[in-house]
Amino acid sequence: MKILSITSIATLLILSISCSAQTTDKTDQNKLNFIFSKGKLGPAENFTGKAWNIGLVENDTVYNTVVGNVYFEPGARSNWHTHPSGQILIITDGEGYHQIKGHPRQTLKKGDIVKCPPNVEHWHGASPQTGMLQMYILPKTENGMVTWLQKVTVEEYSNHK
Amino acid sequence: MKILSITSIATLLILSISCSAQTTDKTDQNKLNFIFSKGKLGPAENFTGKAWNIGLVENDTVYNTVVGNVYFEPGARSNWHTHPSGQILIITDGEGYHQIKGHPRQTLKKGDIVKCPPNVEHWHGASPQTGMLQMYILPKTENGMVTWLQKVTVEEYSNHK
Repeated sequence: MKILSITSIATLLILSISCSAQTTDKTDQNKLNFIFSKGKLGPAENFTGKAWNIGLVENDTVYNTVVGNVYFEPGARSNWHTHPSGQILIITDGEGYHQIKGHPRQTLKKGDIVKCPPNVEHWHGASPQTGMLQMYILPKTENGMVTWLQKVTVEEYSNHK
Repeated sequence: MKILSITSIATLLILSISCSAQTTDKTDQNKLNFIFSKGKLGPAENFTGKAWNIGLVENDTVYNTVVGNVYFEPGARSNWHTHPSGQILIITDGEGYHQIKGHPRQTLKKGDIVKCPPNVEHWHGASPQTGMLQMYILPKTENGMVTWLQKVTVEEYSNHK
């Protein structure tokens, strides 16, 4: 009986956590206007929290331009990283942040455009309360796409400076 | 009295046409999810109907990429034109068309992505009933941006082939 109870409690706990995660997800998703489908979950080694990525324009030698869309769930963010030819971000809904190494964290909202110059460390992600939908453009892909670096710490994520 | 009547009728007619144009515009605009402000009206020599353009990323030598957004009101379309490095279109709302010379007209809706190769004639615009919101990306701008050509005729606009 005791073992059964512990198992039951454990099951309830797991179900409860799982349902709670789904609820948070759905609540935020329902607030936002998705233009594209959510895509696939970004790998845990490059992201903190859940960041969903869908490729929109694949790399080729005609346009040398990659386009995609990321849905950062509340609190989710990329690691620090660089792009050899820089990156253009277009925020289509929600709320989030962008920070270039050594510069203040910027708050982003629907309609904002951000440019990160070539080979400069940056990170981007959602606010703690609201997710962020953002398209990204990688130009001049003949030079490469991305170099992933260290995690964005809680301190870095929370700090406005 | 007769002159006054004619003037009054003329004034009423002008007001009525003006209100009607504004109503159509507002009705369509209210249906669509604008991410960016509408911008400026495109020149009549390059567009049929009302196409509003806002620049999002200006040309420079770092990214060599121009990004902008066009709101085509219902029935509005570009002239035929070419881009020396091609163009990527991203439909964010509404309904419209894209046609590459010699190919069938494509119908476009929210979430669609279209690529037009370098130096290939194409046109794009809204459906007759619903406007279209579309972002455009011009890559490799070191080669130039656009060459404007002839108007898209009513026959070309209406024809599915």
